[in-house]
Amino acid sequence: MPPGMIMTRTLSGESMRDMRAVLPDEVNKNITVQGQGDQPLEPTLENGYKVFHLEANVFKWNILPNKSVDAYGFNGQVPGPRIRIKEGDHIKINVTNHLPEPTTVHWHGLILDNEMDGAGEITQRPIQPGETFTYTFDAVQSGMYFYHSHYATDRQQSLGLYGMLMIDPKDKNQVPEHDVEAVVSLQEWLIRDGLTFPAMSMEGAFPNYFTINGKSFPATETIKMKVGQKALIRFVGSNNNFIHPMHIHGGPFEVIAQDGEPLPSSARYKADTVNVGPGQRFDVIWIARKPGKWLIHCHIPHHTTNDNVEVQGGGGLMMILDVSE
Amino acid sequence: MPPGMIMTRTLSGESMRDMRAVLPDEVNKNITVQGQGDQPLEPTLENGYKVFHLEANVFKWNILPNKSVDAYGFNGQVPGPRIRIKEGDHIKINVTNHLPEPTTVHWHGLILDNEMDGAGEITQRPIQPGETFTYTFDAVQSGMYFYHSHYATDRQQSLGLYGMLMIDPKDKNQVPEHDVEAVVSLQEWLIRDGLTFPAMSMEGAFPNYFTINGKSFPATETIKMKVGQKALIRFVGSNNNFIHPMHIHGGPFEVIAQDGEPLPSSARYKADTVNVGPGQRFDVIWIARKPGKWLIHCHIPHHTTNDNVEVQGGGGLMMILDVSE
Amino acid sequence: MPPGMIMTRTLSGESMRDMRAVLPDEVNKNITVQGQGDQPLEPTLENGYKVFHLEANVFKWNILPNKSVDAYGFNGQVPGPRIRIKEGDHIKINVTNHLPEPTTVHWHGLILDNEMDGAGEITQRPIQPGETFTYTFDAVQSGMYFYHSHYATDRQQSLGLYGMLMIDPKDKNQVPEHDVEAVVSLQEWLIRDGLTFPAMSMEGAFPNYFTINGKSFPATETIKMKVGQKALIRFVGSNNNFIHPMHIHGGPFEVIAQDGEPLPSSARYKADTVNVGPGQRFDVIWIARKPGKWLIHCHIPHHTTNDNVEVQGGGGLMMILDVSE
Repeated sequence: MPPGMIMTRTLSGESMRDMRAVLPDEVNKNITVQGQGDQPLEPTLENGYKVFHLEANVFKWNILPNKSVDAYGFNGQVPGPRIRIKEGDHIKINVTNHLPEPTTVHWHGLILDNEMDGAGEITQRPIQPGETFTYTFDAVQSGMYFYHSHYATDRQQSLGLYGMLMIDPKDKNQVPEHDVEAVVSLQEWLIRDGLTFPAMSMEGAFPNYFTINGKSFPATETIKMKVGQKALIRFVGSNNNFIHPMHIHGGPFEVIAQDGEPLPSSARYKADTVNVGPGQRFDVIWIARKPGKWLIHCHIPHHTTNDNVEVQGGGGLMMILDVSE
Repeated sequence: MPPGMIMTRTLSGESMRDMRAVLPDEVNKNITVQGQGDQPLEPTLENGYKVFHLEANVFKWNILPNKSVDAYGFNGQVPGPRIRIKEGDHIKINVTNHLPEPTTVHWHGLILDNEMDGAGEITQRPIQPGETFTYTFDAVQSGMYFYHSHYATDRQQSLGLYGMLMIDPKDKNQVPEHDVEAVVSLQEWLIRDGLTFPAMSMEGAFPNYFTINGKSFPATETIKMKVGQKALIRFVGSNNNFIHPMHIHGGPFEVIAQDGEPLPSSARYKADTVNVGPGQRFDVIWIARKPGKWLIHCHIPHHTTNDNVEVQGGGGLMMILDVSE
Repeated sequence: MPPGMIMTRTLSGESMRDMRAVLPDEVNKNITVQGQGDQPLEPTLENGYKVFHLEANVFKWNILPNKSVDAYGFNGQVPGPRIRIKEGDHIKINVTNHLPEPTTVHWHGLILDNEMDGAGEITQRPIQPGETFTYTFDAVQSGMYFYHSHYATDRQQSLGLYGMLMIDPKDKNQVPEHDVEAVVSLQEWLIRDGLTFPAMSMEGAFPNYFTINGKSFPATETIKMKVGQKALIRFVGSNNNFIHPMHIHGGPFEVIAQDGEPLPSSARYKADTVNVGPGQRFDVIWIARKPGKWLIHCHIPHHTTNDNVEVQGGGGLMMILDVSE
């Protein structure tokens, strides 16, 4: 029983099953990752297919120099490795399950054959521990997508089973003009008494840590820019619970794409805050107007703390655009 | 005192009143409904008016084959019966209150006379138990609307007092081209120890069941389509607490109307997830590109479980678009 | 330890520090404010600058005739005084800190020099108790903005450290046609056992009171209008936790600006409910079509109660547009 969860006479063991913490002896001690998530994944080329390999594992992951979670993740990273492909590519992705439970992978937003959609028990038998399943599709779209577990999603995606999927358009004119590109992929964590629970939108399960690309501020990356440059910032709602109002300091940005689809020029708008819900992606262009350190952060201030504590001016869902002359 | 609610020295009985469970002896045992909600309601014609009859009652309602709530609802259904009228119609709706407390009905989004707006204690004396009140208005708009209690709304709408109100335009060219129409009306429930509490956005009151059109997955309806067909999917935020990021698998949809108002063609946009807040409606067009079972679901995965448990790949706010060749 | 907060073996004192209540002996008894917040602040003119003075203090603030909070606020008001300037103005704002802790002020959405951005510990050393810091900038934008603490923001803004910042455009043609203007600035409060805690999006810290412009319904202001008049309603997400779906009765409004930036005419849309997230601003035009009392309110009904209790038909985030013939 997680602390704080409300036990009632009728709460079933089944109800509690998905909420339990990752147990220390489930963690693969051979994977010791202090690195960055969202690292490029190189495919092999086989018979006209780009072939990628994903392995789901349980491992310790540092969200801060001195704070780790017991994560479910792909290839020892949170987020999982970045799969960057091109419109028109023929894709195969082998997914091997080393988790202590079944899993699947859903390619969020993609047009593909139904049996490749990864919806556990709906479109496929979940991948059992030890098994490998090969997903295959042709990239007929372009833009910002992501992949994530679609089996016991409340538990598995909360624990880190997600990664970026970027499809570059064939026609380079479709790429918005920019000097710098930054992915801002959101996640929520619940750490209590040294254990990692899946954060859920319910009593006893609300998150107390928050990460961008797998790290909490001040461990988040800093984006270096020069005055006058344009940043293409790609917000990704890879988290499971909150709609995060993501704000950028230093003047408004322009929203140019949503969920991988370019906004028609007539529908584009300026804003300084955009509500990024679970499952959503927003591409925005922000111009570095003045030198200095400009913040990107969630405007729910509890989400810019680490277990309620602010460090160096914030925490959690915060990062810096560092603009020089 | 509901389990989990935080009692403090100064919490008043009044504060607790609205949160209490529906008591078993308040349930009308003569209404035993195992059926579907949102069923068409036929009007009678009287002196140029279409006249509808709504009766508010307390009754058991199955959200799953083996799980019922003690609901407040209209005409023994959750959602209440669908009122489908035409732009230009003259409307009368008799509302009879068989609840153990006063109530009103608000016609959300409609332009009408103030005394017909249903805002309890603001525009009308609430309808007392046993009383009937007649609402009347002319339908000067068209599009997707809904009706709901506007008295002790935190309690009454949470317990099921809402229904769909659809106004077809006079000019058929205003109807977007589509082959299939589906309403996706959201709701949240709190069942504890066999009692039904009004779900509220506060400690001790967060929901643990979630329904589309009154049913939790896998009891939600399945929409049958053929490849190439267009579905007009009408999301309705008839729930009381969360903004639900509603996602559709199998490729993006186009957002064509919001809150009953068509989006100008220049403002339409594509997305695969739309944030549906309480009170909002979004009409989207989704094209069946490939055969198979494509999910519609909330992308907060806790909302696709039933009391934390996933059944047949999900639960709660999930339904299937079943596309055949 | 606030009641309801979940204590675990590893919860640090640091984690609890920011959540503690305002203590009675921290309240400045010389400030007894029963008045309205958001009052115009007059500048002095010095060497071509409009110079404003803000003082941060701890004081009792009535959100209802018989209910006060222990607020952190500017100039004895919640919201702080309205700073209304003109595009092109040269601005200086002296901020004096009389709080029992450091603070800063962030000018949300503005383009200004980095050292004037107010991000505590990022762009400036926080203003210590007793100190004054002078912010200066040129108003190069126009539209609806706001200011707020950007140090321990989860605590300080929750307790009331925010105010409106409105910049009138040089070109009067940019002002949308309207007869009446109303700011709707949102806030959430947590009062327990007579103490005021900073409301946070976590167990034990969810709010139980909600205010528009510093008052809960029925103490919120009423906007007087005549049939046919246009109201420019400016929603401001000055709150810290929830995205509030703000609804207006009596027919749809048109959304014309977001975050101070006019929406291009091609991107404008009609709606009856708009999701206002922390940090966001939405300007909408609502036409008084019929006489009577038309509500503006959050469509999460728990947010239209005062400690769960409805008074005169509602509470919290609710106000009336009173339209006469």
